[in-house]
Amino acid sequence: YFYSPNHITHLSSVFSSLLVKFSKIPGIGFLKIHAPWHVLCREAEFMKLKMPTKKVYDVKQGGNVVEKVRLFIHKVTAPLHPKVDVSHPHILYSYIPFVVLQLLYEEWASYSVFYKYQPIGLIRKYFGEKVGLYFAWLGVYTQMLIPAAIVGVIVFLYGCATVDENIPSMEICDPRNNVTMCPLCDQACSYWKLVTACGTARASHLFDNPATVFFSIFMALWAVLFMEHWKRRQMRLNYIWDLTGFGEEEEVSVRNVKKNKASPDHSHICLFYLYVFKYNHVLAPTQSLVHVLINTLTHYCSQDEKVKLTCSDRLPAYMTTVVMMCLMISVTFAIVFGVILYRISIKAALHMSSYPAARSNIRATVKTTAAIINLIIIIIMDEIYAAIARWLTTLEVPKTDKSFEQRLIFKTFILKFVNAFTPIVYLAFFRGRLVGRPGKYLYVVGSYRMEECAHSGCLMELCIQLCITMLGKQLIQNNLFEIGIPKIKKLLRQRKSEMDTKQEEELNKTLRRHEKDHFLGPFIGLNPEYMEMIIQFGMVTLFVASFPLAPLFALLNNIIEIRLDAKKFVTELRRPIAAKAKDIGIWYNLLRGLSKVAVIVNAFVISFTSDFIPRLVYQYTYSPDGTLHGFTNHTLAFFNVSDFQPGTDPLEPMHLGYKVDMCRYKDYREPPWSTTPYDFSKEFWAILAARLAFVIVFQNVVMLMSDFVDWLIPDIPKDISLQMHKEKILMVELFMKEEQGKRLTMRERNTPQQPRSRPNSHTNCV
Amino acid sequence: YFYSPNHITHLSSVFSSLLVKFSKIPGIGFLKIHAPWHVLCREAEFMKLKMPTKKVYDVKQGGNVVEKVRLFIHKVTAPLHPKVDVSHPHILYSYIPFVVLQLLYEEWASYSVFYKYQPIGLIRKYFGEKVGLYFAWLGVYTQMLIPAAIVGVIVFLYGCATVDENIPSMEICDPRNNVTMCPLCDQACSYWKLVTACGTARASHLFDNPATVFFSIFMALWAVLFMEHWKRRQMRLNYIWDLTGFGEEEEVSVRNVKKNKASPDHSHICLFYLYVFKYNHVLAPTQSLVHVLINTLTHYCSQDEKVKLTCSDRLPAYMTTVVMMCLMISVTFAIVFGVILYRISIKAALHMSSYPAARSNIRATVKTTAAIINLIIIIIMDEIYAAIARWLTTLEVPKTDKSFEQRLIFKTFILKFVNAFTPIVYLAFFRGRLVGRPGKYLYVVGSYRMEECAHSGCLMELCIQLCITMLGKQLIQNNLFEIGIPKIKKLLRQRKSEMDTKQEEELNKTLRRHEKDHFLGPFIGLNPEYMEMIIQFGMVTLFVASFPLAPLFALLNNIIEIRLDAKKFVTELRRPIAAKAKDIGIWYNLLRGLSKVAVIVNAFVISFTSDFIPRLVYQYTYSPDGTLHGFTNHTLAFFNVSDFQPGTDPLEPMHLGYKVDMCRYKDYREPPWSTTPYDFSKEFWAILAARLAFVIVFQNVVMLMSDFVDWLIPDIPKDISLQMHKEKILMVELFMKEEQGKRLTMRERNTPQQPRSRPNSHTNCV
Repeated sequence: YFYSPNHITHLSSVFSSLLVKFSKIPGIGFLKIHAPWHVLCREAEFMKLKMPTKKVYDVKQGGNVVEKVRLFIHKVTAPLHPKVDVSHPHILYSYIPFVVLQLLYEEWASYSVFYKYQPIGLIRKYFGEKVGLYFAWLGVYTQMLIPAAIVGVIVFLYGCATVDENIPSMEICDPRNNVTMCPLCDQACSYWKLVTACGTARASHLFDNPATVFFSIFMALWAVLFMEHWKRRQMRLNYIWDLTGFGEEEEVSVRNVKKNKASPDHSHICLFYLYVFKYNHVLAPTQSLVHVLINTLTHYCSQDEKVKLTCSDRLPAYMTTVVMMCLMISVTFAIVFGVILYRISIKAALHMSSYPAARSNIRATVKTTAAIINLIIIIIMDEIYAAIARWLTTLEVPKTDKSFEQRLIFKTFILKFVNAFTPIVYLAFFRGRLVGRPGKYLYVVGSYRMEECAHSGCLMELCIQLCITMLGKQLIQNNLFEIGIPKIKKLLRQRKSEMDTKQEEELNKTLRRHEKDHFLGPFIGLNPEYMEMIIQFGMVTLFVASFPLAPLFALLNNIIEIRLDAKKFVTELRRPIAAKAKDIGIWYNLLRGLSKVAVIVNAFVISFTSDFIPRLVYQYTYSPDGTLHGFTNHTLAFFNVSDFQPGTDPLEPMHLGYKVDMCRYKDYREPPWSTTPYDFSKEFWAILAARLAFVIVFQNVVMLMSDFVDWLIPDIPKDISLQMHKEKILMVELFMKEEQGKRLTMRERNTPQQPRSRPNSHTNCV
Repeated sequence: YFYSPNHITHLSSVFSSLLVKFSKIPGIGFLKIHAPWHVLCREAEFMKLKMPTKKVYDVKQGGNVVEKVRLFIHKVTAPLHPKVDVSHPHILYSYIPFVVLQLLYEEWASYSVFYKYQPIGLIRKYFGEKVGLYFAWLGVYTQMLIPAAIVGVIVFLYGCATVDENIPSMEICDPRNNVTMCPLCDQACSYWKLVTACGTARASHLFDNPATVFFSIFMALWAVLFMEHWKRRQMRLNYIWDLTGFGEEEEVSVRNVKKNKASPDHSHICLFYLYVFKYNHVLAPTQSLVHVLINTLTHYCSQDEKVKLTCSDRLPAYMTTVVMMCLMISVTFAIVFGVILYRISIKAALHMSSYPAARSNIRATVKTTAAIINLIIIIIMDEIYAAIARWLTTLEVPKTDKSFEQRLIFKTFILKFVNAFTPIVYLAFFRGRLVGRPGKYLYVVGSYRMEECAHSGCLMELCIQLCITMLGKQLIQNNLFEIGIPKIKKLLRQRKSEMDTKQEEELNKTLRRHEKDHFLGPFIGLNPEYMEMIIQFGMVTLFVASFPLAPLFALLNNIIEIRLDAKKFVTELRRPIAAKAKDIGIWYNLLRGLSKVAVIVNAFVISFTSDFIPRLVYQYTYSPDGTLHGFTNHTLAFFNVSDFQPGTDPLEPMHLGYKVDMCRYKDYREPPWSTTPYDFSKEFWAILAARLAFVIVFQNVVMLMSDFVDWLIPDIPKDISLQMHKEKILMVELFMKEEQGKRLTMRERNTPQQPRSRPNSHTNCV
C-alpha cells in the first residue's frame, strides 16, 4: 500500500491532528485521529445533542400510595439491578473506556449475574446506541417471556392433571371398546386394535385441551403487549439517550463507490483509508464522524467515478434475485418432501422387517430420526441461505448502507423463515389430510401411501418436531456456531500470522492494546443475533397452540443467550464503531408481521390440527347426554374389507386372531351401507363449517382485542411525555425571559427614569 | 359587562397596542390588537416557521420523457386549475384579506367552477391550516371517487348486459318450470308460482353477479390507495405549508376553567375577554396567538380556582356516559325493530285486504315506505345523538380542548354510525335468516312471522335501502340542514336584534366590516362536515358489494358538497380563528378503522347475502353438466302441505286452480320423504363451509394485498423527501462555511502571512 502526503494534508484540513503510526504487526498501519473541539461541537449540532438546562423539573409521581409502592418495588428488585452506579460519575466513565469495559465484564458478561437487569446505559456508552438497543430489546423480550413461560407451564400442568378425566382418551384406552382399525400400510400391515393407541391418545391430551385455546389467545395478546412494552421502553431510552431530535440520515453507501472503481492505484489508497477508519479501535468515534471521514475520502478518491445505475442496469440483478429466491424456496420444499419420503419408505421397510423389536419401536424411531434429519438440514441450509442472500444483495448494488442492510435482512428472513417453518407447517396442516381413504389411498412416487396421523391427530408429532427444532437449533447454534466457530476462526487467524507461540507471546507483551485487539474477530453486525431471536419469536408465537412449553424453552435459551452475546461482544470481538439508531428498524416490522400471522396460524392449528372443534360439536349437537361419551365411536368411519383394491389388502388378515369384516378409520365418511358409500358425511361438512367459523371468530376477536390493547396503551410513557412537555415550557420561559430582558435594557436605555414594577408577573402565565 | 384598566395594562405588557372600541351594536365591544414585531418573531420561533434560504435546490425530474409527460399533463389539466396566481404576489395576498376573500368567492365558492381543483393554498391563507386540510382532504376524496365511480358504473353495466344470459333468472322466468311455492304468510296468503318472482330475479342479477366480487376487492384496495394518497398529499402540504417542524401542543382547556369559576364578576371579565378574542374577525390571528392571550387572561382570572379532578370525581360522568351510550344504542335497535314490525304488520294487513290493486303493489309499497320511515328516523335521531354526545362529553370535563374534541367525535361517531348502519346490517345479515321453515315458522310479538327475503335473496332490498339512505340523507341534510337551517337562524338572529328593516339598512351602511360580520353565524367547527363524509365513506366501502353505484352517488354529492361548504365558509360564517394542524387527527384513524371493517363486511355480504357461493358450489360439484342449469331447482326444498301447523295453512288452497300436495321453499333442507325430514341437508353444510372458507380467504387475501400496497407506496413523496434531504445538506454546508469563516479569520489574525490555497475544496465533500 502506498499513500500520498497530499491526502493526509487534505484530511488534516478537517481534523486538526493526525498521527500515522506503523505498528509492529507487518502490513497494518494505525491512524490516530484527534478531533478538535469545534469539530465535535459541529457534530453535536448536527446530531441535535442537547445540553442539560440548569433548571430541572421534578415530575411528581401521583399520590403517596403510588410513591410507596414504587419505593417498595425498588427495594425488592434492588438485588436485580447491576452494581453499576451510572448516575454520579458518568463523566468519568465516558472518558476511560477500559474502566467501562472492566465494569461490563464483571456486571454484564458473566453467567453469575444472569438474574440481574443489564447495565444498558453502560453498554450504550461503550458500544453505541445500536448495540445498546439490541440488548435492551433482548432484555425486554426475555423479561416478557417470564409470564408467558409461567402461563405455558400452568397450561401444560393443567393438561397433565386432567389427562385421567379426559373421556376420549379413556374410551380409547378402555379394552371393552373392541374397535378393529384398518391397516396402516398396504399388505405388510394388518388390522390393529384401537386400544394400542392408548399411550399416544393420553399424551396428545397434554397439548390438545381447552386450555391451549385460552393460551393461544393469551399469547396473541402477549405479543401485542410485548410490542407495546418495547415501544415504550424504546421511547424512554430515546429520551434518556437524547435521541428524540435525531433523524436518521441515509448515507450514500461506500460499497457503491468500491464497485465502480476505475484506477486500481487510486482505489488502493481509498481501501487503505477505509480499512484504517473502519477498524479503528482505539477511539471508537461515532459512526457519524467516521462517515464524515469516509465520505471525505471516497469523495476525493472517486470524484468522477460515480456512475448512476439505470433501471436496465439493475434489472438483471433483480431478476436473478427473484429467480434465486424462488429456487431456494423450492429447494427447501424439495428437502422437506425428501424427508417425508424417507419417513414413508423407512416405515414401510421397518414394517416389512421380521424383527418384532424393530416393529414395536417403528413409530418412535422414524419420528425421531426424521426430526433430527430435518434439524440438521435446517441448520446447514441456514448457513447456505445467509451466504446466498448476501451475494444476491451485493448483486443488486443498493444505493445506501441502510438499504443494503434492509434488503439483506428481508431476503435472509424469508429464506430462513421458510427453511425453519416448512416442516412444521407441513406437519400442522397437510400431514394426514392428503391420505385418501381405505380402498382409495393416495399414492406418491409409485406405491408409497401418504403418511397418516396417529388416531388423536398430528398435534403430538407437531409438538415433538417443534421441541426438537427449538432445543436442537438453539443448542447447536449457540454452542457450535456462536462459541465454537469463533474460537476456530481465532485459531486459524493466529496460524495465518505464521509465528511461533513463543515469539508471539513475546510480541504480545510488547504490543499495545489496539494492536492486540486487532487479532480479535471483526464485528459483523447485529443481524445474525436479531435473526435468531426473530425465528425464535416465530416458534414461540406461531405454533404456541400446539406447544405451550415453547415460551419456557425460549426463556431458558435467552437467559444464556444474553450473557453469551455479552461475553462475545466484550472479549471476542473488536469494539464496533458506535452507531446511532433511534429504533430497531426493520426488525420491529418483522415482529409485527409475525404477531399478525400468528393469530391466523393459531386459529388454524386450534380448529384444524387439534380435535377441539369436533369435540365441541359432538358435545353440543350429536351427543345424546351432553358429554363426550361416544365421541371416539363418532369419529370413526366404517370400511368394508371387501372394498380393498386388489393387492392392497393385508397379507395376514388373521393377525388379530379373528376374521375381520368391517374395519374402522378416522374420518367423517358415509358407511358402506349408505346410498353414497365412503362419501363425506353430513357430519364432515357440519364440522368443517364449525372449524371455519371458529377461524373467522378467533381471528377477528383476537385482532380486535389486539387493536384495543394497542390503542389502550400509550406509546410514550406518561412520565416521559410529561417531562418533554415541561422541557418545552422551560424553553418557552427562557425565550420570554430573554425577550423581556432585551426589552428592559432597551427601555432603560430609552427611558431610564421609569422603573418597571412587575417584571416577572406574566412570564408565569404562559 | 365591566372591565378594569388593570387587565388592559396587563395585556399590554404582552401586546404593545390595544385599542378598545365600542361598536354601534349595543352590548358588543371590539378589541383591536396590534402584535409587535418581536411578539410575532417569538411566535414564529415557537411554531418553528422557516425562512426561505437564498440558495434553492432545483430538483431535477428524471429524464426528458418524464419532463415532457409532466408538461403535457400540466397543459391538459390547465383549465382544471383555479385562476389563482399564488406563486408570485403571495406577499401581497397575505396582507389584504379582502382580496383573498374576493378571489375565494370567485374561484372556489361557486358552482360554476365545480370541475376545477380547489385553491388550497389560498384557503389555508385565509382560513388557516385546519380548514385548509379539510378541504384538501375532501378534494382528494372526491378525486379518488372518480375512478371508483367509473368502475362501479362499469360493473353495474356488466350486470345489465349479462342479465339475459343469467341462467338462474332465466330458469325462474321460464313458465315451463312449473314450480309451486309455499305461501308467504299464514292463512291470508296462498301458494304462488315462482314465475311471478321473475322481475325481482332479473333485477337482483344487476347487483349479484361475479363482477361485484371483483368490485369489492377493488374497493378494498381503493380504500387503501385513498389513505396512502391522502398521506402523501398531507405530507406534501405539510412541506409546502412549513409544518414539518410543528409539533402539536396540547393546550389546557378553557372549558375547564369556565366550569370551575368561583367569583361571578371575575369570570364575567374573563368571559368578556374570551368572547372578544374568540370572535375577533378583523385580524384573524393564529390560534396560537389567541391561545397565548386566552391563557394569559384565564391564568390571571382563575389563578387559584383550578381544581384537579380526581378519579372519583370523574367516575359518575364516565358511568353516565357508558349507560347513556348503551341506552342510545338500544334505542336505535328498538327503532329498527319497530320498523320491522311495521313492515310485517302492514304486509299482513295488506294481504288480508280485499283490494287487488293494493295486493299487487304490496311489496313495493311496504319496502319504500319502510325505507323512508327509516330514513326520517335516522335523520332525526342523528341530531338528537349529536346533542347527547356533546352533553355527555361536557359532563366528563376533559383536560384539554383536543381531548374534548376527540371524545366528542368518538361518541358522536359511534352513535351516528350505529344509527345509520343498523337497518342496513339487519337487511344484509339477519333478514330472511331467522324465518324458520314451513310448518315451523318463527313468530314474533304474538303471531307475526319474521320477514322472508325474495327468492333471489335480500341483496335487492339492501340495495334499495342503501340507495334511499344515501340519496335521501345527502339531499335532505344538504338542502335542509346545511342551507335551510342556517338561513332560518340568520333570520331569527336578525329578528332578535329587534330593528326595523329600514333602520337596519341604514345602520348596515354605517357599520364597519367587522361589525357586519358579527351578524354572520358563528363557526362551529369542522366536525359535522367530517362526520357526514365519514358516514358516506362507510356507505361507499362497507356495503359496496351490494351496491356498486354507491361511489357514483357519493361523487355527485361531493362535487356539490365542496362548493356548498365553500359558500358557507365564505359568505355565511364568521371567519374562524386560524388553527394550525399537521393532519386530520382522529378522522384518519376512523377512516382506517372503517376500511379495515369494510373488508370483513364485504366478505360476509358476498358470501352470505349474495348467491355467489351457492352458484359456484352448484356449478363445480352438483351440476351434472358444469353449468348453472338446474340451480333454481337445487336451491328449493320440498314441503308436504299436510305438515302445516293447524291454523296456518292457506285459506284458499285452490288459489292457483289445482290442489297442491308439495310446495317448495328456498332453503337447503331434507325432503319430507327422508329419514330426517326438514333437517338441514348435507348441501346446506357443504355450502355453509364454502361460504365460511370464502370469508377467510377473502379477508386474508385482501388484507395481505392492502398491507402490500401500503408497504409499496412510500408515505413521503419522493420529490419532497429529496427536497428535505437537500435542504438538510444546505444547512450542513452553511454550518461548515460559517465555521471555516471563523477559523479563517482566526488564523488570519494569528498568522496573517500564510495565505490559504484551497478554501472551498472540502465543503463540497460532505
